[in-house]
Amino acid sequence: MRKYLLAGIAALILPASAFGRDAEVPATPNGIVDAAPAADWIAIAPRDLLVMDLAPGSSGIARRVVIQLVGATYAQGWVSNIRTLAAQHWYDGLAIVRTQDNYVVQWGDPDGENRQKAKPLPEGLRIMTEGDYAVPAAATDIGKGTRLLADAYASGAGFDRGWPVASDGSSVWPVHCYGSVGVGRNLSPDTGTGGELYAVIGQAPRQLDRNIAVVGRVIEGMEYLSALPRGTGPMGFYATPQERTPIVSARTGEAVTDLARYEYLSTTSASFAAYLDKRANRRDAFYIHPAGGVDVCNVPVPVRRAAQ
Amino acid sequence: MRKYLLAGIAALILPASAFGRDAEVPATPNGIVDAAPAADWIAIAPRDLLVMDLAPGSSGIARRVVIQLVGATYAQGWVSNIRTLAAQHWYDGLAIVRTQDNYVVQWGDPDGENRQKAKPLPEGLRIMTEGDYAVPAAATDIGKGTRLLADAYASGAGFDRGWPVASDGSSVWPVHCYGSVGVGRNLSPDTGTGGELYAVIGQAPRQLDRNIAVVGRVIEGMEYLSALPRGTGPMGFYATPQERTPIVSARTGEAVTDLARYEYLSTTSASFAAYLDKRANRRDAFYIHPAGGVDVCNVPVPVRRAAQ
Repeated sequence: MRKYLLAGIAALILPASAFGRDAEVPATPNGIVDAAPAADWIAIAPRDLLVMDLAPGSSGIARRVVIQLVGATYAQGWVSNIRTLAAQHWYDGLAIVRTQDNYVVQWGDPDGENRQKAKPLPEGLRIMTEGDYAVPAAATDIGKGTRLLADAYASGAGFDRGWPVASDGSSVWPVHCYGSVGVGRNLSPDTGTGGELYAVIGQAPRQLDRNIAVVGRVIEGMEYLSALPRGTGPMGFYATPQERTPIVSARTGEAVTDLARYEYLSTTSASFAAYLDKRANRRDAFYIHPAGGVDVCNVPVPVRRAAQ
Repeated sequence: MRKYLLAGIAALILPASAFGRDAEVPATPNGIVDAAPAADWIAIAPRDLLVMDLAPGSSGIARRVVIQLVGATYAQGWVSNIRTLAAQHWYDGLAIVRTQDNYVVQWGDPDGENRQKAKPLPEGLRIMTEGDYAVPAAATDIGKGTRLLADAYASGAGFDRGWPVASDGSSVWPVHCYGSVGVGRNLSPDTGTGGELYAVIGQAPRQLDRNIAVVGRVIEGMEYLSALPRGTGPMGFYATPQERTPIVSARTGEAVTDLARYEYLSTTSASFAAYLDKRANRRDAFYIHPAGGVDVCNVPVPVRRAAQ
């Protein structure tokens, strides 16, 4: 059975009896995705995955977090650095340093701010500039496949080749949504290397868009981050080393043996357009009042394991 | 030290050295709230609190979740039911039945759908209608104090006497944000009694607005819900009884001895207006690109413990 990595849709158990013998089962977002033809799904190349294995929890079960790295138009300098760091096994032995409720889980070198103890970075990392947080609109496919959505933070928001993005009309940037992964940094003009990363575990912090690089999204194992105990230090940093979950390893997908295959629903497909429309207009036995609109972060791009 | 219950703001530790000897420390949302005069804070009456004590975790520490019940214009039938249920100790011995990542934690009677085993409800609960999900705009103070915000789900969103709300021009309803508490129900036209409740632990599910009653928000102890292990059953329901965190008791605040006092920042105060504006326009040593806008769910109304 394919495991869908969609955010939950229905709020309640709908008892089967509720539909009645002759009732037509209404279309739901999940139903539309389930019915999408194989051709609407795009394979994710293993090299576009960052596979992070955390130390087993108290249950002894390994905790694997799979992150899809953002596509070729966006953040490629940071993504390149992440590939370099992963190839050098640089993340191995580092840890989750922070879990702040309704904000982020953050990981990297706990000694990163200590000149004597910080783990040396490898040669060849690219230095990115603040101009790299966004790209020229002409270099993107924003608006292809589905209409732009109203947005409080930009002229419009939409999707580009599987990624939620926003635009001010001339430039486009990937947006922070739940599960988005970004690059920790110090004060401007520092832009971060990719050695410190975070994932969003609450309301989309859109004020971070264009201020920090979005480099991907968690597509599996989100619960290993979102259910972590919150840190008790300032901003959710863990107060003691023992509270920091160790990172056993982080590799890009082509370096992981027996890794599952993943695919995402093409955002220029008719299925995705129907799914988005249904997310914006739910009316069925449960929903009585269609919203008539939707936030870009409330249309999570469907990602799933591909049939093996 | 007053404990602030704001969502996290800053993404990084800002080293003190970054500001420089003569640098003016820039205004931040938290700074504005900290500096708000006492007169801008409104006390929350104990009866407007639902205090839910969960069984201690493995650490043995009691887990108290404090919920502020929504103000007098909204959802009062359901709120009245919640007070009745709490006064009858009806929630005691029930449990958290569901934790779905990026969606909700839900609690109530695990046997609620079983006619033989369901816990009998007390007499006198009010039956609410679907028309009660929203109220006439004229009965509200939406738009007082701060301007309406652009919103994908409504004509506009804003604040009414401490609560985030949205409007279609003629009616107003409380919106679902992270930490919002709502009333579980079955299919339309059921509207739920208040015996089954949920709290939002992910991206604001605004598609639920006007489809289900919002009755409050978690103001303390959110981590006791958001960090729960996710349920492995469908929609995050727990597959086994042992996984369900027991509810020891739920009482309204006037029935709890030695309960802390709480207050919220008046949404018609100048401080709140300045705070909202800063949330929408961050520019400082960290933020280089002010968004120029903000989502109603990204301006969490400050709530804190009052000085004792």
